[in-house]
Amino acid sequence: MEESRHMRGEAFRRHAHRLIDWIIDYQERRVEELPVLSRAEPGSVHDKLPQTPPTEGEPFEAMLRDVDEILLPGITHWQSPDFFAFFPANTSYPAILGELLSAGLGVQGMLWATSPACTELETHILDWLVGMLGLPDAFRSTSTGGGTIQDSASSASLCAILAARERATGYASNQHGLDGKFVAYASTETHSSVIKGIGIAGVGRDNLRLIEVDESFAMRPERLEERIRADRDAGCVPFFACATVGTTSSNGIDPVAEIGPICRREGLWLHVDAAMAGTAALCPEFRYLHRGLQFADSYCFNPHKWMFTNFDCDCFYVADRSALIRALSVLPEYLRNEATESGAVIDYRDWQVPLGRRFRALKLWFVLRHYGVAGLQHHVRRHVELAQRFRSWIEADERFELAAPAPLNLVCFRHRGGDDANRELLDRLNRSGDLYLTHAVLGGRVALRLCVGQTRTEERHVADAWRRIREEAQALDA
Amino acid sequence: MEESRHMRGEAFRRHAHRLIDWIIDYQERRVEELPVLSRAEPGSVHDKLPQTPPTEGEPFEAMLRDVDEILLPGITHWQSPDFFAFFPANTSYPAILGELLSAGLGVQGMLWATSPACTELETHILDWLVGMLGLPDAFRSTSTGGGTIQDSASSASLCAILAARERATGYASNQHGLDGKFVAYASTETHSSVIKGIGIAGVGRDNLRLIEVDESFAMRPERLEERIRADRDAGCVPFFACATVGTTSSNGIDPVAEIGPICRREGLWLHVDAAMAGTAALCPEFRYLHRGLQFADSYCFNPHKWMFTNFDCDCFYVADRSALIRALSVLPEYLRNEATESGAVIDYRDWQVPLGRRFRALKLWFVLRHYGVAGLQHHVRRHVELAQRFRSWIEADERFELAAPAPLNLVCFRHRGGDDANRELLDRLNRSGDLYLTHAVLGGRVALRLCVGQTRTEERHVADAWRRIREEAQALDA
Repeated sequence: MEESRHMRGEAFRRHAHRLIDWIIDYQERRVEELPVLSRAEPGSVHDKLPQTPPTEGEPFEAMLRDVDEILLPGITHWQSPDFFAFFPANTSYPAILGELLSAGLGVQGMLWATSPACTELETHILDWLVGMLGLPDAFRSTSTGGGTIQDSASSASLCAILAARERATGYASNQHGLDGKFVAYASTETHSSVIKGIGIAGVGRDNLRLIEVDESFAMRPERLEERIRADRDAGCVPFFACATVGTTSSNGIDPVAEIGPICRREGLWLHVDAAMAGTAALCPEFRYLHRGLQFADSYCFNPHKWMFTNFDCDCFYVADRSALIRALSVLPEYLRNEATESGAVIDYRDWQVPLGRRFRALKLWFVLRHYGVAGLQHHVRRHVELAQRFRSWIEADERFELAAPAPLNLVCFRHRGGDDANRELLDRLNRSGDLYLTHAVLGGRVALRLCVGQTRTEERHVADAWRRIREEAQALDA
Repeated sequence: MEESRHMRGEAFRRHAHRLIDWIIDYQERRVEELPVLSRAEPGSVHDKLPQTPPTEGEPFEAMLRDVDEILLPGITHWQSPDFFAFFPANTSYPAILGELLSAGLGVQGMLWATSPACTELETHILDWLVGMLGLPDAFRSTSTGGGTIQDSASSASLCAILAARERATGYASNQHGLDGKFVAYASTETHSSVIKGIGIAGVGRDNLRLIEVDESFAMRPERLEERIRADRDAGCVPFFACATVGTTSSNGIDPVAEIGPICRREGLWLHVDAAMAGTAALCPEFRYLHRGLQFADSYCFNPHKWMFTNFDCDCFYVADRSALIRALSVLPEYLRNEATESGAVIDYRDWQVPLGRRFRALKLWFVLRHYGVAGLQHHVRRHVELAQRFRSWIEADERFELAAPAPLNLVCFRHRGGDDANRELLDRLNRSGDLYLTHAVLGGRVALRLCVGQTRTEERHVADAWRRIREEAQALDA
């Protein structure tokens, strides 16, 4: 054995056991006791860290102590059962085990050849999910399309935009640069990543038309149609539309079944972003969410939001994989290999922006197998049920009103006292540390959002949230 | 307690302990016994997986069994000490512990407010690394710039290209779309991700000028200068150059100290990609690699290649953070918060393509603290020493020749028998499972690449590789 500064196996085992205990204690006890939203002031974590790195190695115990003393006060607890903010980013023990194994194997899945199992497991379970969510058959790898794991719905949107841009330019813009006025469409409620992606692709954010929504915050298809016509009359080239199934502000559901035929007729690439709400389609009673999806060229949903799989895990599907691959493929000599040349395999580096990729399918596989379809359905139904209960409490209290329809696990509501009252209410609740909500502006007015999706959220947490909301509203009125 | 299908704490502890043992056994014993390059045939992993997902949950034991029986034969063992292919993607126990803790905490670091510690730890240790690698002070967060963790050097390149594009267009192309003929520069040996990124940004791959290299496979600065002049004469707008410190094919080192002043004078954004080689600058004797870096607008190196931190962990620095942020920022209402509005904090979502981000700084922090600066230097020096020993063996054997200078841990060499002989040699070696090498084409001729950078690679592994290479060369001659 050569001189080594590596951690030895027995030390790793000891530290890992301690860390596992730490995680269990965190997940099952501490996370519920700590203030959900961190109270750290800017710089307060930074100020406690040493100015320079250590010259000689330090014991793991010192790091774990610093995690407790320095980091933990600066953590906003996404895994708290009292976290109702944004959309969830839930996780579970099986997912953590999958992430651990992925780190332990340390493989690179950029090419099929660099670990065939990494690619084939991913393809396989993304095919499983086509059936589980009732997605169109074209999204199966055995058809013309296929699925892949992206880090986020943002990256999925960008890939969709790029494939659309390439298809619209006859696969020329990648090579020759973008030339001409290409225009894209999404609703006013679309996710910021679509705006970001359109900018990145060189199309220009000005050329993303934000289409008006109806009272349920869903895109008005007739407005989309009008706008496409006006753009064509003005010499623009409409090339892409993004429909959202479950917008971030309010869970608005764009009518894909009406938008789809318009896009098909007009030759637009239709991307459907169901980042959070897509998971609901595990349950047949919510599968209506995917109505019209046979018109979609691409689609994504995030198991890292509401399917117990820690970030990052976005499932991105295309109906025609060749368009995506043509948009993203570069084959330098040093990546050439027999399997790639044969055309018999998938090289996922051509399905995404980065070259490298870790073995993310493992955690998703562990989650699907641990819970089984029935187990996932159980928890998704339960979250929706809890949100619907909260919604009924809002409806029954005359001080509050719903700010948007609440079809699933997100309830947008407001105190009838106006924007300032709602901002004050939000601030009091979040400062208390008892729960964490975020806000949206809906129809020009501030609304509070309560989203039920954390792994450990039970009825008592939602009931406590409602009690705290009423208490603070009372204090507000006083 | 409500009815739950979640894994219980005690079960998680039991499974995690088993998995930890599995990882130790894999890393310390099995990984060395298994064929490095997987022998799986296309579809062979897929064919062993059930057609449909389970309805009811399965025990973890079944998953771990399938890992052994179904997945492992489909794994190419990047952590094998006999893995000399591509560039390394090494890992270490401290990094695995960091990844485990990150999964256990499950926080989202998209905004400072969504976990201040996630942002502040990242900023802080990227500042540490400025000192550790002798990077310019402008890259410090306390100056005009700062660092962030990207998933890969590909994403870092893309972000650099986008910031450059925005700066060159007066921050207009993001908004209005790209208009005009913008041209970029890199050497013929540049990484494929630069070509990919230029295409993504709408610039057009045709508008990336691939500049000739010298006999050391380094960009010829005079050719760059000539080409910029010719492009300006032709009415193009030069806006971006990428210099590589350690090209993938041969570890060629572009002369940044000469390229830098040209870029500065001509107003080009200079990005320096030191994905693998940058780590060597931990040692003062290799810090010459960063000569001229004061002219760089951005820079990256990958701890996930050669610094014992499992993928994904690319450190990306900019000298002027405002250019990057202006290129990538979008602020929807639902992400507005007091800390962001105050301007006193960093929101890393504006430094990258995706919105979401996990707590990747943890694993890097654990690595830096476990090894200390001296420990990292020790292992980097040792890898270089082993590669140099291999290089001396090549030089001393008349059947072989060096195919490129080998300044660090990558040795490119060839059998004097010609391309077919080298391809055959590579194929025999890789099929044997005893080691894994990849190839490059250098100066129009096939070369074999042996890169020393795996965590557990010791002298005996390099000596065995050399023995096997000679044996197969012998068989080739027979």
